[in-house]
Amino acid sequence: MIEIDISRARSFVKERAYNDSYEKAKQAFEQVKQRNGAGSEWLGWRTLLSDPNDAILEQLDSLATAIREDADVFIVCGIGGSYLGARAVIDALSPFFGTDGPEILYAGNQMSGQYLDELIGYLEEPNAEGESKSVYLNVISKSGTTLETALSFRILRNWMEDRFDDISERIVCTTSEEGGALNELIKKHGFPKFIIPDDVGGRFSVLTPVGLLPIAVAGIDIRSLFYEAVSKFEALEEDPEPVLEYAAVKHALYEQGKAIDLFTTFEPQLNALSGWLQQLLGESEGKENQGMFPAKATYSTDLHSLGQFVQEGPRNMMETFIQVDSMNEQVEVQAEDEDHDGLNYLEGRSFHDINSRALEGTLQAHHEGGVPCVVLTLDKLNAQHIGEFIYLYELLTAVYCYCLDVNPFNQPGVEFYKKEMYQLLGKQ
Amino acid sequence: MIEIDISRARSFVKERAYNDSYEKAKQAFEQVKQRNGAGSEWLGWRTLLSDPNDAILEQLDSLATAIREDADVFIVCGIGGSYLGARAVIDALSPFFGTDGPEILYAGNQMSGQYLDELIGYLEEPNAEGESKSVYLNVISKSGTTLETALSFRILRNWMEDRFDDISERIVCTTSEEGGALNELIKKHGFPKFIIPDDVGGRFSVLTPVGLLPIAVAGIDIRSLFYEAVSKFEALEEDPEPVLEYAAVKHALYEQGKAIDLFTTFEPQLNALSGWLQQLLGESEGKENQGMFPAKATYSTDLHSLGQFVQEGPRNMMETFIQVDSMNEQVEVQAEDEDHDGLNYLEGRSFHDINSRALEGTLQAHHEGGVPCVVLTLDKLNAQHIGEFIYLYELLTAVYCYCLDVNPFNQPGVEFYKKEMYQLLGKQ
Repeated sequence: MIEIDISRARSFVKERAYNDSYEKAKQAFEQVKQRNGAGSEWLGWRTLLSDPNDAILEQLDSLATAIREDADVFIVCGIGGSYLGARAVIDALSPFFGTDGPEILYAGNQMSGQYLDELIGYLEEPNAEGESKSVYLNVISKSGTTLETALSFRILRNWMEDRFDDISERIVCTTSEEGGALNELIKKHGFPKFIIPDDVGGRFSVLTPVGLLPIAVAGIDIRSLFYEAVSKFEALEEDPEPVLEYAAVKHALYEQGKAIDLFTTFEPQLNALSGWLQQLLGESEGKENQGMFPAKATYSTDLHSLGQFVQEGPRNMMETFIQVDSMNEQVEVQAEDEDHDGLNYLEGRSFHDINSRALEGTLQAHHEGGVPCVVLTLDKLNAQHIGEFIYLYELLTAVYCYCLDVNPFNQPGVEFYKKEMYQLLGKQ
Repeated sequence: MIEIDISRARSFVKERAYNDSYEKAKQAFEQVKQRNGAGSEWLGWRTLLSDPNDAILEQLDSLATAIREDADVFIVCGIGGSYLGARAVIDALSPFFGTDGPEILYAGNQMSGQYLDELIGYLEEPNAEGESKSVYLNVISKSGTTLETALSFRILRNWMEDRFDDISERIVCTTSEEGGALNELIKKHGFPKFIIPDDVGGRFSVLTPVGLLPIAVAGIDIRSLFYEAVSKFEALEEDPEPVLEYAAVKHALYEQGKAIDLFTTFEPQLNALSGWLQQLLGESEGKENQGMFPAKATYSTDLHSLGQFVQEGPRNMMETFIQVDSMNEQVEVQAEDEDHDGLNYLEGRSFHDINSRALEGTLQAHHEGGVPCVVLTLDKLNAQHIGEFIYLYELLTAVYCYCLDVNPFNQPGVEFYKKEMYQLLGKQ
């Protein structure tokens, strides 16, 4: 179970303001449930969980197992919601150094030619056994024409065609059911295909094949991830109170003028999870001149960079701590004869124990310094808890955005730069 | 030369407000020059450049060459200003995949026991030639007792003592001239030592041995980096106009109520440079309830996450684009017989060319959407331009903070969490 403690945030909000926001959150949750709010045609991220399709999990699992057996490298080719969720889960649950399966690399998420150039050079180097690398690629795009992804995919696909005889087994497409550029290629080459449901937007798609195939290839148990999200869905349908309170306090703080919500973790492997949150919240709430900027920091390292600002900068910030209660690690401080660095007083303590005191100390200091703080505590870092975390934040995002009276599911502003860019590129 | 274009920011500021801020910036620059502003005992980052010490560069270069010849892995053990500068420069100028020298790894910049555990496991694996890895470590800390760094260093030093006979040649200390925990260890073991000047704070220390040793070990020409910073120093002493105008417009926008300065790059290897900027600005300006939160984004990937917020969220943001004019890359779009993805119209264009149009389009869209934009353009990504960039932002930070009437060089707020944490840890 993930615990949400809003007490250190609620103390900054007047009772009446909180109650008003709480009423809004209650109505907002009803809008989500009754499917009568703005953008309600995009609620497929809930249907996924209310009506789980085990057959798809089975297919994903079996393809992932086959890829894990043969691949040295698995490339995830997608941008925004087409890769941030997978990356968040994979980074959170994979070792820092090496893996027992294929190396997971990313492409099509930016337009650096240098990166693509060097990536191909790396793919052409022999693997650890001195053999030519076995490369698989998963291209993820509803339309197949998102510029960054389509560009990188064209280059990588051509490279793979030159290099491998069996690209029809090496390239997997995750795309819309019908139409779009990838479906044409699938017809031609017979690439395996997974469908992105029409009613699930990119930033809500991590529990569809968009996220689940790369996550399964990384060796993470997608059933545990998925079914714990299902359990969380059911629990919150029954009793949405934790989300209503969280949305209420966040909304009340926004109404009070808070401009930034800083998401902080004390575990470096959760950095990409904050990146997923940035998109989920930022793209959902940042419209009609509204929203709190979702910033991210990884402590304790960023206490030595952004910490000063949080402690004593403008009081326009709230902070959300994502804490992990227990970690699997065996590093303990040992006493030394000569206590040069003065650390002997920590003898026998684990790093996680010390890290947790750093979190507690930071929380106290920032709270006393005038920063409203929400604390989410995960018992452990495993697929179950991450699954729970994902649905929790998806629902929070929808409820909180309805409190702001904005449509959580569109992103009209993203079109502006594209329009300018395509004009500059001379696209007809 | 780095060009700074403030025109798309200045248009959001009334002439009179700009002139007031400009006058402040002029005075601020005089305070820096005359060494009569707050914290003027910390201006050593200027003395370094006004009076370059070539002998130190020589020593750094020769030690780095020796390490590059023997090391498989070089660990940078430091936190905050003790590693962010090195990481920024190394990431900006190194390949994405592999290197021709030792692998550079980081430790002591957080308190993840899992990371440290896995790091040691990785160090114990054989190198590519099947031999035991040759490991060097550079510990960087003025006091030697910064908790994160001291903890990791104690564990790694003990591990190295068990593994290598010659640790006195494998561990290099960068620390204060006298006193501190590391100087005691240096006396005992004879570790090579480099000095952090007393009058240079962590976030201004990248051009001291703090940053320069790791940068040199990464194979980057530290003379080019350093002497281009010297040239920039001299040029701006002569004519500070570009910095005065930049500081003036940033200050005027802050006075107007802007809460966030979003630093954006279109080259993924510049992500860590934005991290260095976050500390440099955030820790300098974020005090006495003042400052603009320095956020960072890497486009175009983050256009698919934060882009919506920037385009249509609250108009409380300015944006700083860091652009690179030309890149060394050879990836071009080729025409295909069947134009499935509709990209044939880009035939013959390089990725960098397309990426540059994306930048231009984004800049136009955000500017038209009501976001004041500053654009810094680097001709190329090389050591010279990064050296220039570093001094430019160091001076800007000092001048802009004096405009805000805060001491750019202290960080009193960082002590609060430490106090709480040490109490929780039972430190006497």
